Amino acid sequence: MTKTLGYAAQSATTPLDAFRFERREPGPHDVQIEILYCGVCHSDIHTARNEWKGTTYPVVPGHEIVGRVTKVGNEVTAFNVGDLAGVGCMVDSCGTCPDCHEGLEQYCTTGAIFTYNSPDPHTGKMTYGGYSQRIVVDERFVLRVSDKLHLPAVAPLLCAGITTYSPLRQWKVGKGQKVGIVGLGGLGHMGLKFAHALGAYTVLFTTSPGKAADAKRLGADEVVISKNSDEMQCHLNSFDFILNTVAAPHNLDAYLELLKRDATMCLVGAPEDPHPSPNVFNLVFRRRRLAGSLIGGIKETQEMLDFCAEHHIVSDIEMISMQQINEAYERMLRSDVKYRFVIDMASLK
Amino acid sequence: MTKTLGYAAQSATTPLDAFRFERREPGPHDVQIEILYCGVCHSDIHTARNEWKGTTYPVVPGHEIVGRVTKVGNEVTAFNVGDLAGVGCMVDSCGTCPDCHEGLEQYCTTGAIFTYNSPDPHTGKMTYGGYSQRIVVDERFVLRVSDKLHLPAVAPLLCAGITTYSPLRQWKVGKGQKVGIVGLGGLGHMGLKFAHALGAYTVLFTTSPGKAADAKRLGADEVVISKNSDEMQCHLNSFDFILNTVAAPHNLDAYLELLKRDATMCLVGAPEDPHPSPNVFNLVFRRRRLAGSLIGGIKETQEMLDFCAEHHIVSDIEMISMQQINEAYERMLRSDVKYRFVIDMASLK
Repeated sequence: MTKTLGYAAQSATTPLDAFRFERREPGPHDVQIEILYCGVCHSDIHTARNEWKGTTYPVVPGHEIVGRVTKVGNEVTAFNVGDLAGVGCMVDSCGTCPDCHEGLEQYCTTGAIFTYNSPDPHTGKMTYGGYSQRIVVDERFVLRVSDKLHLPAVAPLLCAGITTYSPLRQWKVGKGQKVGIVGLGGLGHMGLKFAHALGAYTVLFTTSPGKAADAKRLGADEVVISKNSDEMQCHLNSFDFILNTVAAPHNLDAYLELLKRDATMCLVGAPEDPHPSPNVFNLVFRRRRLAGSLIGGIKETQEMLDFCAEHHIVSDIEMISMQQINEAYERMLRSDVKYRFVIDMASLK
Repeated sequence: MTKTLGYAAQSATTPLDAFRFERREPGPHDVQIEILYCGVCHSDIHTARNEWKGTTYPVVPGHEIVGRVTKVGNEVTAFNVGDLAGVGCMVDSCGTCPDCHEGLEQYCTTGAIFTYNSPDPHTGKMTYGGYSQRIVVDERFVLRVSDKLHLPAVAPLLCAGITTYSPLRQWKVGKGQKVGIVGLGGLGHMGLKFAHALGAYTVLFTTSPGKAADAKRLGADEVVISKNSDEMQCHLNSFDFILNTVAAPHNLDAYLELLKRDATMCLVGAPEDPHPSPNVFNLVFRRRRLAGSLIGGIKETQEMLDFCAEHHIVSDIEMISMQQINEAYERMLRSDVKYRFVIDMASLK
C-alpha cells in the first residue's frame, strides 16, 4: 500500500480539503501513475455535493487524469515506467458482457467501475479519483498519451473530449454535413473542435452573444443566438446532427425542429430537473430522433486521443492549484471558465 | 364535375351528416374510384372536432379507402377500369423535393396534400376524404389492392397498416429480435400482426388484462400488463425496438428503460397534451433513442399491401353503415371497437 495525499469532500456541504488514504500496490496487470494534471468536470461538483444522490464520503473526485507511469505489474505489456498515461471516467468493468466485448465498457451490463465513488473490488471501499498524487489502474483502462500535445490541456480530453467525440463518431459526422453544438462550456468547446476537425459545417448555439467571437476561433462556421427565434427559424429542417451539451433544463423543441428528416439530437448533459417535455409532433413529422450518449469506451477513447495528436487538438484550459479547487467550483457554477480548469498536481507537494 | 354524396362535419360540435359536393373530372393522370369501404381512423375524430386545430369546415374525413376504378385519364398506365384500388392519407405532393424523390412523400418539404382538410390545388377548396361515394386521385397516389384479401378489412391497412409497418421496417425489425408493441387499438393490433409476421419475438404491452387472450391470437408471444411494475422490471434492457401506438399522455420512461443499448422506441401516437418529460438518464446511460414516425411513403405503402397479400394479413374490423358514424366515434373514444370500424359505402345509396 502506498500512502497518498488527495483532496476530498467529507460531506455534501463541506469544502474539499486535504485527505490521506492508501493506494494498492500494483498487481500483475496494474499500472501505477504519478498524476501530473487533473481536469475539473461538472460531475465532480455534482458528486462532491451529492446532487445526483448516492455519494459516499469521503469522496475524492477527478476523472480527467494525465501523468507518468511510475511502476508496472509484471504482466503489463502496453506501458513502461516513464511513459505518459491517461485515465478517464472508468477504471474497470466486468470484461465479459456483450457491451465490454464490443469495447463499450461504459455500458457494461453489470456496471463499470467508475474512477471515483464506485465500489472498489480491490479495497472494499469506494474508488478515489484524480485529485490525488497517484492512482493504480488495470492496464486495460489506461490510455496512451502523446508527448506532442501540451500535457495539462490533454487532461480534459479524458472526459469532456470523449463525451463529445463519441456521439459525433456514432452518428457519423463528417464532410458535407451541417452539425450543431448547443452550449459553449467544457463539453461544448470540445464538441466544436471535433465537429470542425471532422469536416462538418459547424454551428454553435449559445444564449450569450459575447461568446460568438470565441466560438469562431474554436472552429464554428456560424454562431446562432438561441434566444433569437427569428435566427433559429432560419435553420428549420437543416441539421444533420445536433450535439446538445447543456445540462440545465431547456426547451428541446427549439432544436428538434432544426433537424432534417431522420436526423438526431444527442443529449450529453444530464439535468438535475427534467427538460420541458419535447413535442411528439416534432419527432413524428420528420421521423426525427432524440438520443443520449455516455462518455465512450476505452478503445474509442484511445482513438480520440490519437485523433487529437494528429489534429493538434487539446482543451482550452485555465490552470489552478489544488488549493484553489473550491473557488474553481464556484466559478464553474457561474460559467466563469474558458473552458476547463486543470489542477496542477505539483501544488499538492 | 361529378356530383358526389358524402358525410361531413359542418363544425367542431355538430355530428357528421350528409353533404353533397363535386369531384373533378379525371385529368390525364387521374384515377376515379368508386369507394366501396372506408376505415375510420382516430385522426378523423381529431379533425372533425378540430382537436388538432386547423380544420376547415365542412370537412369530409376518411383516409383508409378501398374501391373500384370507374374511370382513368388517358395517360394513366397502372390502372384500368374495374381494378381494385386503394387511397391512403395522401393524394399528392410536390414530387420534386429530396423527400419525394426518395419516395417519402409524407415528409415532402413543401408539405404533402393530405386526403382531407388539405388545400386542394385542383379546386381551390379543401380536399374531401373517403366518407363519400367516389374520389379522383393522381395515379401516383393510388395503390394496387389484391383481390385475395377480404376487401373491407384491407381498408385500415391504408393508414393503421402503413403507420405501423413503416417504422418496423425503418428500424429493421426481424427474426432474432425482441420487439414491443405498446397499446392494442387500431394501430397496435396491426403492429402486432406485422412484428409477428416479420419474425420478431413480439411482446404486447397493455393496461388491460382482459386484452391478453386476444393479443396472443393476433400474434403476441407474450403479454405484459404495463401497470404491473414487477412484470415490467423483468424486461429491463431487453428490447431491440418498441413501437408505441398510445396517443394518450403516459410515462415513456417505463418503456425506455426496457430498451437495450442503442435501441429505439418509436412513437406513432400524437397526444393532444404532452407526455410527462422523459428522463434524460434513460437515454444517456444506454445510448437509447426516442423517435417518431409518420405513416409511410407511397412505395412503401404498396410494399406493405403486397406483404399483406403474401402473408394473409388484414385488419380486424367491425363494419358499420355511413349513418352509424357518429355512434362509432363515441364507441372509439371508449375503446369499444375490435379493432377498426369500416364504413360500408353501399349504405350511402
